[in-house]
Amino acid sequence: MQKIGIGLAGFGTVGAGVFLNLQRNRLLLAGRIGMELSVQKIVVRDPAKVRAITLPPELLAKSWRELIDDPDIQIICELMGGIDDPLELILAAIQAGKIVVTGNKALLAEHGREIFAAAMKYRVPVFFEAAAAGGVPIIMAIREAFIANHIRSMHGIINGTCNYILTQMTERGIGFQEALAEAQASGYAEADPTLDINGWDAAHKAIILASLAYGFWVGTEQIFVEGIEQITADDIRFARELGYRIKLLAIIKGDESSGIEVRVHPALIPATHVLASVHGVFNAVAVQGDVVGETLFYGRGAGQDPTASAVISDLASAALAIQAPRSHFGFTPHALYGRCKTIDEIVSQYYLRIPVLDKPGVLAQVAGVLGALNIGISSVIQPEGTEGEAVPLVLMIHDATNAQMQAALREIRALAAVKAEPRLIRVESFSS
Amino acid sequence: MQKIGIGLAGFGTVGAGVFLNLQRNRLLLAGRIGMELSVQKIVVRDPAKVRAITLPPELLAKSWRELIDDPDIQIICELMGGIDDPLELILAAIQAGKIVVTGNKALLAEHGREIFAAAMKYRVPVFFEAAAAGGVPIIMAIREAFIANHIRSMHGIINGTCNYILTQMTERGIGFQEALAEAQASGYAEADPTLDINGWDAAHKAIILASLAYGFWVGTEQIFVEGIEQITADDIRFARELGYRIKLLAIIKGDESSGIEVRVHPALIPATHVLASVHGVFNAVAVQGDVVGETLFYGRGAGQDPTASAVISDLASAALAIQAPRSHFGFTPHALYGRCKTIDEIVSQYYLRIPVLDKPGVLAQVAGVLGALNIGISSVIQPEGTEGEAVPLVLMIHDATNAQMQAALREIRALAAVKAEPRLIRVESFSS
Repeated sequence: MQKIGIGLAGFGTVGAGVFLNLQRNRLLLAGRIGMELSVQKIVVRDPAKVRAITLPPELLAKSWRELIDDPDIQIICELMGGIDDPLELILAAIQAGKIVVTGNKALLAEHGREIFAAAMKYRVPVFFEAAAAGGVPIIMAIREAFIANHIRSMHGIINGTCNYILTQMTERGIGFQEALAEAQASGYAEADPTLDINGWDAAHKAIILASLAYGFWVGTEQIFVEGIEQITADDIRFARELGYRIKLLAIIKGDESSGIEVRVHPALIPATHVLASVHGVFNAVAVQGDVVGETLFYGRGAGQDPTASAVISDLASAALAIQAPRSHFGFTPHALYGRCKTIDEIVSQYYLRIPVLDKPGVLAQVAGVLGALNIGISSVIQPEGTEGEAVPLVLMIHDATNAQMQAALREIRALAAVKAEPRLIRVESFSS
Repeated sequence: MQKIGIGLAGFGTVGAGVFLNLQRNRLLLAGRIGMELSVQKIVVRDPAKVRAITLPPELLAKSWRELIDDPDIQIICELMGGIDDPLELILAAIQAGKIVVTGNKALLAEHGREIFAAAMKYRVPVFFEAAAAGGVPIIMAIREAFIANHIRSMHGIINGTCNYILTQMTERGIGFQEALAEAQASGYAEADPTLDINGWDAAHKAIILASLAYGFWVGTEQIFVEGIEQITADDIRFARELGYRIKLLAIIKGDESSGIEVRVHPALIPATHVLASVHGVFNAVAVQGDVVGETLFYGRGAGQDPTASAVISDLASAALAIQAPRSHFGFTPHALYGRCKTIDEIVSQYYLRIPVLDKPGVLAQVAGVLGALNIGISSVIQPEGTEGEAVPLVLMIHDATNAQMQAALREIRALAAVKAEPRLIRVESFSS
């Protein structure tokens, strides 16, 4: 049986998971692809680090250059994390004609254009299923299964940490800080959870999905990203009273004539929508295609085994591409979709909570500001709050651009009756 | 731009949908794959038939042999339906080295072994994403995305007609015949709905999914199939009172040591399970892999456009396989899973409704029969029925084999207090 040599860069949670599962299910993989996937060398940043899974000393390489130079290694599997080192490694691998498998979403989001240009130039495929939504095969779905489709929209819950925190806040009424501390204690949030809770982990994935869907590599500076740090237990409760749940949502929409939208932010979604039922660390992506219609993909978006499942599927595809070279290298640019809309242009519905003095006339003032800016109000509630002297005034706002809403916020902040910073959360009604 | 010639056999709902969408999204497809997919010839059984979409007369071939003989045709797209003609066409195409795309589930279920043996022999890929769950890319998921996984189980709602009928019965309390008639009037059931409602359409798809998952082609005679014709409005109501919904479920389970299960039958599932929320004509498949864990795929399983989306994704894969020949031909047999369990061996939980005389002692008699056969009862209800002199006695039964239950039914039928045929419906609790 033909042996395919893999050079593994990185032996953290995912790298070790790939190594273990390749061993555990090696007979199954051999039966299915008729080849043996064999890790020949492993390189890590710190060989002395204590690890849950022992790194086999006989496979340890001194530098990633050894992996590139080894003639028995045909696939470079990059699972190091970080940006500079993996970029250098991947570009060197492509130039050396070694197929690349990576799960590095930050790297692809920031340097995808450059990496796939090199892949096309050297005709070396780059596989990256693990870079978005872990065990959920959403990249394969967008790129291959829905190739006949203009992707009208994708709505994704693609950060398990945020979804876990928001689920805990929703189910138990606790605050953000408490939920975050618990998530860290349970291993669902990292010691430094910044990239998760500020939305950028989801944003990296959204960039990859949008780029695949629309044929040009979306820049990190072109998208709007807002995290969940400012979501309060009150907001979640008020949303619930209005029939909504709050989720960190990646929203991707495309139209050939007017451009595309890529944004990641907390959003109120109808409690009856299927995405509202995605709890805890699970991921889900709802995809609307012009031919296929409405679809949904659901599964574990992170974790050792689910991510290893995605990486190994890429390793198998890479092995088959060695037997039969591919004419597709991971991302094919085209020019059917023009540009990325700025957040100021993007139309949305909104939930607006304003801490106000509890006296007559305040609603009239706020409504006056909105009306003058042509912003329509669909409903108003004044729920019981927990903010002391101020009371929450909650307005649901019809379709408006961000530019309109920011103009309104400037005027609302200046009202004497407004006691603290208003809170604006977008509402996704899935109507279009 | 390279032109890839397609010979289209069949111009019914799906064939016409493929033709139309290939035209409508041709720029997108060209941008994504760098080739032009061009239908060169079309063959139909009855050229004189009146069609919703006009068949372009200049493309009409006299026989499928013309498609095989045309040197400009590299892909044969079989969407004729039926068994004998398409089998002959597909085998001739493979021998002629033309890549095959088909959505013919009945054909693959019955002749998959033969077709894929020919595909491997002549090294010609056969693509069939449209043969299971239409627009839901479940074949790609099982075969490629989850290649690293032992598939522990698949639970599928994969017949839209049955799901539409059961949804109507559940939501409106109507009977099977009324719901079927409405489904026919609305176009959700065919004039002859036999294959849908007797479970065999779902069974064909289940055979394809199980064969891909377990590496041997499952025979139609090896599986258990039961339709929804006997489900009554009462059963649905009683199930609801017990916290369940009734769905036509394809259940596929595999274990390397004890064999695999493939069955299609109505099943009570917990109302809180995500599959209970799959309504109307939608399809969904929950897949449990040993590495990836729990996943779910959801979308439209039938209809012109969703099915065309799947067929066109196969046409694109076929076109790429012409540029870069594949080493994978659609199905790779292996011997890691041994055999298909018979229904008599299969362990399940059950809902058992027995129409009985309303007098003391009947439950004791039934419980005595079950107890003597070592069958445990988990709960009993005696709801208000609509059956005249008999009243329904409903028992929920713990794990038992079908052999045990059939033995029990023989004795229960013989009890004097039992007034009509008992009704046994399996219960899937998703516990394993």
